Amino acid sequence: MKQQPAGRDFRPLSIPAVEAVSRQLAKLPGIGPRMAQRLTYALLKREKKEIEQLIHALHSLANDVLRCAVCGNYAQTDPCPVCKGEGRNTKILCVVEQPQDVQAIERTGHYNGLYHILGAALSPIDGVGPEEIGVTKLLQRLNDPIEEVILATNPTMEGDATALYLQEVIKPLHIKVTRIARGLPSGSDLEYADEVTLALAFSSRAEM
Amino acid sequence: MKQQPAGRDFRPLSIPAVEAVSRQLAKLPGIGPRMAQRLTYALLKREKKEIEQLIHALHSLANDVLRCAVCGNYAQTDPCPVCKGEGRNTKILCVVEQPQDVQAIERTGHYNGLYHILGAALSPIDGVGPEEIGVTKLLQRLNDPIEEVILATNPTMEGDATALYLQEVIKPLHIKVTRIARGLPSGSDLEYADEVTLALAFSSRAEM
Repeated sequence: MKQQPAGRDFRPLSIPAVEAVSRQLAKLPGIGPRMAQRLTYALLKREKKEIEQLIHALHSLANDVLRCAVCGNYAQTDPCPVCKGEGRNTKILCVVEQPQDVQAIERTGHYNGLYHILGAALSPIDGVGPEEIGVTKLLQRLNDPIEEVILATNPTMEGDATALYLQEVIKPLHIKVTRIARGLPSGSDLEYADEVTLALAFSSRAEM
Repeated sequence: MKQQPAGRDFRPLSIPAVEAVSRQLAKLPGIGPRMAQRLTYALLKREKKEIEQLIHALHSLANDVLRCAVCGNYAQTDPCPVCKGEGRNTKILCVVEQPQDVQAIERTGHYNGLYHILGAALSPIDGVGPEEIGVTKLLQRLNDPIEEVILATNPTMEGDATALYLQEVIKPLHIKVTRIARGLPSGSDLEYADEVTLALAFSSRAEM
C-alpha cells in the first residue's frame, strides 16, 4: 500500500449531512466530537421513521415549550399547571435555581406546593446580582397569601449565598423561611463523607 | 410541609414536549434517561434557532444519506465519491465491518484505496453467515482489476473469523490478501499490555 503524504486535507469521504448532525450534537454538554459521531451513525442505522420521530419531538420542543410568566418554569401553557394551583398547596413556595431542580423534587413525590425558578444563583464574579435572579418578581409573588418559603437552592457557595440573601429580603415580610436540610446522603458511607458534610450532619442533628 | 402519599402518580409538571425529546434521545447508545433529560434541558436553554439547526441537520440525515450500491458506505451520491475513483487508487480494496471504520481509517490519512463495507462480522450464534455479510457482492467487485485486498475487520473473535473466511474465499482468485497488523497500540505501556497482544507483538516482529 502506498503511503499518503501525511496531513492531506482533501476529504472525499466527508458526508455533509452526517457531519452537520455530529456538529450539532457535539454542542451538547458531555458530548465530545467522537461521541457525537457515534450517535449520528446510530441514528443512521435506525429506520428513517425514528429520525422523523426525533425531528417531530424537537419541533414541538422549539415551538410548544414556553416559560411560565408566574414561576419561570418550562411549560406548555402559561400560567403552568402548577401556578394554576390545580391540586397544589398554594401557600408554600419552593425556590430553586433551575427548572431541572423542579423535576428532581417532583420525583420524590413529597412536595405539593408551588415553585419559583430563579434561573441562576447569585454570583457577583459572573455578574449575577439580585436583579438577574429576579428578586423583584419573587417578592411580588409574596403578596399572595404564602405561609412558607422553602429555599431549595443548591448546597454550593453560590446556592448558600443566594439562600442567605433571599432570607434577609423575605424576613421583613413575616413569612416563614426555611432551607432544605444538609447532612449525609442516603445510602452513603459515613467513613467516606467529607468533613463539611459530616460536621453539618452533627450540628443539624435532630431528636428521634 | 405536608407529606404527600408516596407513589402518587399524577404528574402535573410533566411537559410532553420535553419528555418526547428525552425519550427519543434515551434510545441512543450510551445515553440513559437522566442524561437524555439533561440534554433536553440544555437544548431548551439554547436559542430556538439552534434547535432548528439540529432539526434541519436531522432532516438532511434522514433524506439525503443513502448507501453506495457499490461499497455499502453511507454517502450523499450513488456511487459514492470513493467508488467513482476520484483521486483514489482503485487497485486496492480495504474490507471493513462498519461505515465508522472507514472514517477511522480516513483520519489516519495513510490509505488512498477503495473500501468495502460488510455491515457486520460473521457470527453464527447471531445468525450472521456469509450471505448476511454480502460475500457474493464482494466477490463480484473482485472482477475489477484489484491487486490487493486488505482485511481490516476488528481484532475480535468475530472479526478474525471473518478475515479468515474471506481470505479462504479470495485466495483462489490469485489476489494478494493482507490483514492489518496487530501489536502494541502507540503510546501504551508494555507493562500493561494483555498477554495476547504482547504475544502477537512478538510473533509479528519485523526487522528494522
